[in-house]
Amino acid sequence: MAFVQIRAAKEGDCGDILRLIRKLAEYEKLSDQVKISEEALRADGFGENPFYHCLVAEILPAPGERQGPSIVGYGLYYFIYSTWKGRNVYLEDVYVMPEYRGQGIGSKIIKKVAEVSRERGATIQALKRPEYVALDQGCSQFRLAVLEWNKRAIDLYKALGAQDLTQVEGWHAFCFEGEAMRKLGGK
Amino acid sequence: MAFVQIRAAKEGDCGDILRLIRKLAEYEKLSDQVKISEEALRADGFGENPFYHCLVAEILPAPGERQGPSIVGYGLYYFIYSTWKGRNVYLEDVYVMPEYRGQGIGSKIIKKVAEVSRERGATIQALKRPEYVALDQGCSQFRLAVLEWNKRAIDLYKALGAQDLTQVEGWHAFCFEGEAMRKLGGK
Repeated sequence: MAFVQIRAAKEGDCGDILRLIRKLAEYEKLSDQVKISEEALRADGFGENPFYHCLVAEILPAPGERQGPSIVGYGLYYFIYSTWKGRNVYLEDVYVMPEYRGQGIGSKIIKKVAEVSRERGATIQALKRPEYVALDQGCSQFRLAVLEWNKRAIDLYKALGAQDLTQVEGWHAFCFEGEAMRKLGGK
Repeated sequence: MAFVQIRAAKEGDCGDILRLIRKLAEYEKLSDQVKISEEALRADGFGENPFYHCLVAEILPAPGERQGPSIVGYGLYYFIYSTWKGRNVYLEDVYVMPEYRGQGIGSKIIKKVAEVSRERGATIQALKRPEYVALDQGCSQFRLAVLEWNKRAIDLYKALGAQDLTQVEGWHAFCFEGEAMRKLGGK
């Protein structure tokens, strides 16, 4: 039987990650918004001070089994900051290919992100910030966003203990982009 | 007449920033959630690889005028990542003391964040990431969150060209924290 491994993404995985980013956007019915390139993913995630971190779910076939597409899921996250709680982690995307759902791969990715962001050592390693050794402090909060009709995802996040802050406290996500962003920046 | 200057925060401003963080949380009726300390703000914002960046609005009195509390507003932001659009900026907080509202200080802070995050040179300087010189690419999106009853803020963001993505696309903000975060991280 094939085994699923959750591991840190490598630069060479960016083609697969982009394939899954497109699948997720398709599922979210927002495909036309995907403008990213594999080159940008490589440059932004794998330099000295990466803009994001990524986990992939990889199928490791048993000896003698045929190898299909091996990257079947991903979770892309980065570190953010709360003026109330300090250092936090944000899970931008989590996705598992439909034919691999129902095996707990999504939960494993989410748990791994929580683990990485809470563990002091892992945080330091991920962030390359030695000054944090002294503070011995990981992320206290884990945020993400989900479309209100995506019941499957919402059920999973709630089962894992997440709160819907839009529902409970009334937070709305706002965004400037395109022309609004250009006007705002004065260029 | 006093003059308002929008400038990058210095480590010595953290006491004033914390005072304003508390004022904003009070206004948002969520004061009990503020757990941050001045020490954490200093450590997290002013190391070699800061977790956040901050602008302050400072009153510069005219010669002979009495000097009151000089920091009257702030905007705290950091760089995030969209798998659709690449590098983005997130404005975590923007606040102006009530007695200084109506003079456009909030808009000035928001515009300055947009400017800083769009300008290649400024982005490089803020991020200390020389590898981005080659890409010549700033942030294409500017995100923030607002409480749905905060009409004053919503009117300002909309007037400046922001879209309410919760309303338009149905995005909800989810969060794990406290016990849920501990369970998730397996510790």
